[in-house]
Amino acid sequence: MSQMNTMIAAHPSVQGSTNEVLIRATQEFYSCAQMCISCADACTAEDQVEMLRQCIRLNLDCADLCFAAGSVGTRRSGSNEEVIIAAIRACQTACTICAEECEKHASKHEHCGICAEHCRRCAQTCEEAIGSIR
Amino acid sequence: MSQMNTMIAAHPSVQGSTNEVLIRATQEFYSCAQMCISCADACTAEDQVEMLRQCIRLNLDCADLCFAAGSVGTRRSGSNEEVIIAAIRACQTACTICAEECEKHASKHEHCGICAEHCRRCAQTCEEAIGSIR
Amino acid sequence: MSQMNTMIAAHPSVQGSTNEVLIRATQEFYSCAQMCISCADACTAEDQVEMLRQCIRLNLDCADLCFAAGSVGTRRSGSNEEVIIAAIRACQTACTICAEECEKHASKHEHCGICAEHCRRCAQTCEEAIGSIR
Amino acid sequence: MSQMNTMIAAHPSVQGSTNEVLIRATQEFYSCAQMCISCADACTAEDQVEMLRQCIRLNLDCADLCFAAGSVGTRRSGSNEEVIIAAIRACQTACTICAEECEKHASKHEHCGICAEHCRRCAQTCEEAIGSIR
Repeated sequence: MSQMNTMIAAHPSVQGSTNEVLIRATQEFYSCAQMCISCADACTAEDQVEMLRQCIRLNLDCADLCFAAGSVGTRRSGSNEEVIIAAIRACQTACTICAEECEKHASKHEHCGICAEHCRRCAQTCEEAIGSIR
Repeated sequence: MSQMNTMIAAHPSVQGSTNEVLIRATQEFYSCAQMCISCADACTAEDQVEMLRQCIRLNLDCADLCFAAGSVGTRRSGSNEEVIIAAIRACQTACTICAEECEKHASKHEHCGICAEHCRRCAQTCEEAIGSIR
Repeated sequence: MSQMNTMIAAHPSVQGSTNEVLIRATQEFYSCAQMCISCADACTAEDQVEMLRQCIRLNLDCADLCFAAGSVGTRRSGSNEEVIIAAIRACQTACTICAEECEKHASKHEHCGICAEHCRRCAQTCEEAIGSIR
Repeated sequence: MSQMNTMIAAHPSVQGSTNEVLIRATQEFYSCAQMCISCADACTAEDQVEMLRQCIRLNLDCADLCFAAGSVGTRRSGSNEEVIIAAIRACQTACTICAEECEKHASKHEHCGICAEHCRRCAQTCEEAIGSIR
């Protein structure tokens, strides 16, 4: 059991019965956000940065929406799942579109390949997280 | 013309033809986020904080999604409006649900009334912003 | 009196005696964050983006620290001013360094000039905000 | 080697010679931010929430500054370490003060104990991260 699991298990409204799929998902959202921030910065440093403009933007958009989904998903919004689902859906859209863009540059730039892979997996995790809530 | 308008008008891909509805919207997203952070803190300080638990959470969720919509909307994601729309839709959901909760406490707590009003207006702004993009 | 002032005046621990200097400062932190996000995106779109790498990074760093200072300053951390001051100091450092970099490009890129001006003013506001707390 | 290490090793300005202490630190900043968000939410749900007001605020302040330090530290601000150090110093202050507050409630609330432990460790990590940069 991860430390985050132990943490959430100690929540007075949870009392041990954690949604482990959602907890793992929130951790992946934060990790994907960091990957995207790092990829944007690596793209900025590339010789051919002018080919990577759209990638930089989508990386930063994706990071913002991953962070929001991570924080909203970490907070237990009581009986209201609608906000969590909205946050995760937006995160999923951003991850999917960011992955598509990163994949175009994966053969030239290893960081884009790594980032694309994370975003693809994160979009899949979003699906599972939503499934675990409903 | 606001300073933010002048700023975005200086963007090389914009060159003066700004979407003023979207720019105003992004400013309102940030301002609504700050309102929600302030309302959550005021709720935490209330004598009857145990009545305001759900309000605190929804305030914080709303702030996170407003910030993300503000930043994604500020960035010009090239020809890709899908991410901006996803971010604004999530923001709108959070604003609507936060407003509903805040309204329940508006008669007792002025800050909840002010916050509810901002969230309602922000949800409406989301609609206009999406309309301006499409 | 701004709406944010009214909001914070309604806080049970404030009861009307707001620190208007700090409130205005928090609003400027968020506004400076947005300017920096916009400047980073405009830099990314410039023909000579390879000259603006450091500017893009410092803009994004500055945005992150402005947001944090805005949110920490909005929340009334009870009797503990040390965290607020730490947040504002970090914001001030980022604003000063970002302004220096943006000024180098101000003659070529209007957005860098606007951003530099905002960051300079924001660094000054940080000083005033810290003075208002102590 | 963690995935984040592989990612940053692929950065064109890094080319394999990563600062592993800093990379691990940024991951811990994000993880500490999530812990603090979770602790704030658990505190909000406690029967004796009125005893935990200061804890909730400091948790949220700490989360904001941990996120900023994580993102600034992930981005390679070229030759400019001053901003990274400022961000990490602010994070360290917030972690230390949050840990002190959480420790007061650790005997009653397990989540405060877990959070205090993370914040203490994170404050120590800040020190090591700064040492690794200079």
